[in-house]
Amino acid sequence: MSTITLTTDFGTGDWFVGTLKGVILGINPRATIVDITHEIPPGDIRGGAFALAASFRFFPAGTIHVAVVDPGVGSRRKAIGVQTANYFFVGPDNGVLSWALAKEKVNEVRALENKEYFLHPVSRTFHGRDIFAPVAAHLSRAVRMRKFGTMLKEFLRLPCPEPRRRKDGRIEGEVIYVDRFGNAITNIDASILADVKNASGKVLVGGKCICSTGGFYDSVARGKPVAVLGSSGFLEISINGGSAAKRFGLRPGTSVVVHL
Amino acid sequence: MSTITLTTDFGTGDWFVGTLKGVILGINPRATIVDITHEIPPGDIRGGAFALAASFRFFPAGTIHVAVVDPGVGSRRKAIGVQTANYFFVGPDNGVLSWALAKEKVNEVRALENKEYFLHPVSRTFHGRDIFAPVAAHLSRAVRMRKFGTMLKEFLRLPCPEPRRRKDGRIEGEVIYVDRFGNAITNIDASILADVKNASGKVLVGGKCICSTGGFYDSVARGKPVAVLGSSGFLEISINGGSAAKRFGLRPGTSVVVHL
Amino acid sequence: MSTITLTTDFGTGDWFVGTLKGVILGINPRATIVDITHEIPPGDIRGGAFALAASFRFFPAGTIHVAVVDPGVGSRRKAIGVQTANYFFVGPDNGVLSWALAKEKVNEVRALENKEYFLHPVSRTFHGRDIFAPVAAHLSRAVRMRKFGTMLKEFLRLPCPEPRRRKDGRIEGEVIYVDRFGNAITNIDASILADVKNASGKVLVGGKCICSTGGFYDSVARGKPVAVLGSSGFLEISINGGSAAKRFGLRPGTSVVVHL
Repeated sequence: MSTITLTTDFGTGDWFVGTLKGVILGINPRATIVDITHEIPPGDIRGGAFALAASFRFFPAGTIHVAVVDPGVGSRRKAIGVQTANYFFVGPDNGVLSWALAKEKVNEVRALENKEYFLHPVSRTFHGRDIFAPVAAHLSRAVRMRKFGTMLKEFLRLPCPEPRRRKDGRIEGEVIYVDRFGNAITNIDASILADVKNASGKVLVGGKCICSTGGFYDSVARGKPVAVLGSSGFLEISINGGSAAKRFGLRPGTSVVVHL
Repeated sequence: MSTITLTTDFGTGDWFVGTLKGVILGINPRATIVDITHEIPPGDIRGGAFALAASFRFFPAGTIHVAVVDPGVGSRRKAIGVQTANYFFVGPDNGVLSWALAKEKVNEVRALENKEYFLHPVSRTFHGRDIFAPVAAHLSRAVRMRKFGTMLKEFLRLPCPEPRRRKDGRIEGEVIYVDRFGNAITNIDASILADVKNASGKVLVGGKCICSTGGFYDSVARGKPVAVLGSSGFLEISINGGSAAKRFGLRPGTSVVVHL
Repeated sequence: MSTITLTTDFGTGDWFVGTLKGVILGINPRATIVDITHEIPPGDIRGGAFALAASFRFFPAGTIHVAVVDPGVGSRRKAIGVQTANYFFVGPDNGVLSWALAKEKVNEVRALENKEYFLHPVSRTFHGRDIFAPVAAHLSRAVRMRKFGTMLKEFLRLPCPEPRRRKDGRIEGEVIYVDRFGNAITNIDASILADVKNASGKVLVGGKCICSTGGFYDSVARGKPVAVLGSSGFLEISINGGSAAKRFGLRPGTSVVVHL
């Protein structure tokens, strides 16, 4: 009973995701396939990297995570399979796997080259279906990593904006993701913010204090803003029952300062 | 082979639903997980309650229904598990389960308190992942209800607008849901409308007759309105090939009168 | 371990798809259910036919494909089950199955008439739940085709626009589908275009050359148009990192000429 997860920018309006699942089930009818999301904006490698990094560790050990945000499909970018201490990862070598891999002990990286494990004919526009899905399915049947191709020493790592503590003690970070509820998730995480649960911190955007920290969304009145340590482990700016992103014009890259 | 259903306002654009499934599969790799919908408008408890009430009974006996529309997450609202004659229900005690429960014989209501069955650390913003998903997974492995917490005598019930028969014999109700096709589903159900299949009833909105009753959408010409006894067991106002909600400005709460 | 696929116009915002799955699992708890897509525009039979035709063959032999785009539900259109050399197909007899069936050897067509295999009471507005889902579930439990109803000699076939080679050697076709990425997929397929991979063909829309053919999306600079032999086997007009449909105003029916 192997689990294979899918994180893509394919959307659900076309038949693309369905065909990946068909290919997987043709190779391993017992695979359990879970959609993480298919609504990554087309070609947004960072969006895919963040979604995968935020979710992969909630799956059982041995899960095979497939991420396909692949604007360079058909070009010379490599296809890779990675085995870490707990999981397998499969996708293009364009950084989409790298934020998740940064949190794992990487044991082995392989170029996916062995055509024996591909779907034929291999198209030049849909490696999700023709390479990544079948390789994941073979992995779920316990095919060994070394079968898929040569070992690589490196993989492409997306730069990850790090929060920093300024001389005046304030913490400076940025918005990295806006979710469905309009919560603006920052790169300021629990470790740098150890005190935030209790301390009454202030959050500044564009030099103006927009809210204080709090324990949960409903800790402030309806319609009021609050910054909570969210479920992904990052500080997020929220409005109880509303969209903080809309209210304050927050988007990935917006600078955020926390004053504890 | 236990089935667990999910009804939430999480959307499918982020990774939230995926992580619930990862947590469930980590506890019970053999669980079959079915999405009812994740597109309940954020925080719309009534929308979630209606979707669950319209669908739960089509699942096999023993199915565990999880509904998470939870604007009060982290506050003092209770988390509950309910066993009925046919099913289990898991969610926040804010009414989202109550319209489904109104159709079932309730055997046992428990507060979900036993941290042994939670995912740790429990966040204050995502009980779907940290409480409801793991409890559902444990239920699917036949953990007994009494293990989860103290018995409750009550749970929060959302008021449900009831149709009424007026002195002049007309039936008065309201729109409670508008579906993807623009069908406006009312709270006027088969029991109060026993004759509608054959009788030629008239439907009035705002004092004006907008259509007659009919057997099915295609019983009128393309572009024409008709009121049918829909698949959820309620009278719905429809346009063959179009959106009745748009044409007539119908939305939840719009008053509807039927004159048989 | 039977696989059942679903292709519908039900959307995922309501509970419709969930109830189909509940009905299937009630009959066959071991069925593996795969969504192809539920975002076919309401009532767009050709859209459903194309999505199914583009995806069905990627599933393992024996898969049961259910397609429900059914604006005539409740009227006198037939419900059919079809067994081909490799698959089963279930849906309304309105053409939605016909483009997939055109690529298969059809062995047997049956009218779905035997109420023993329906969900009762059968609504007049939701045969997906009440007829097609339960019939598919019974098929997945190896109920024989002849049990479902009388044999039919024919089924409704949607006309399929064919590309043609003009006297001047140019190939004339049309756009048949626009995908999430804004790729405009034409009806000009690999067989008529045998040379396109190598030849430098020109693509004309409205008499103007809009791009050349290429091997893959990233074979041209970002923002530039290219026509590739896409993963469905058809020529598609694309923009590297953008929407060709938007840029050039392409939509189903737009005439496309290829000059090799």
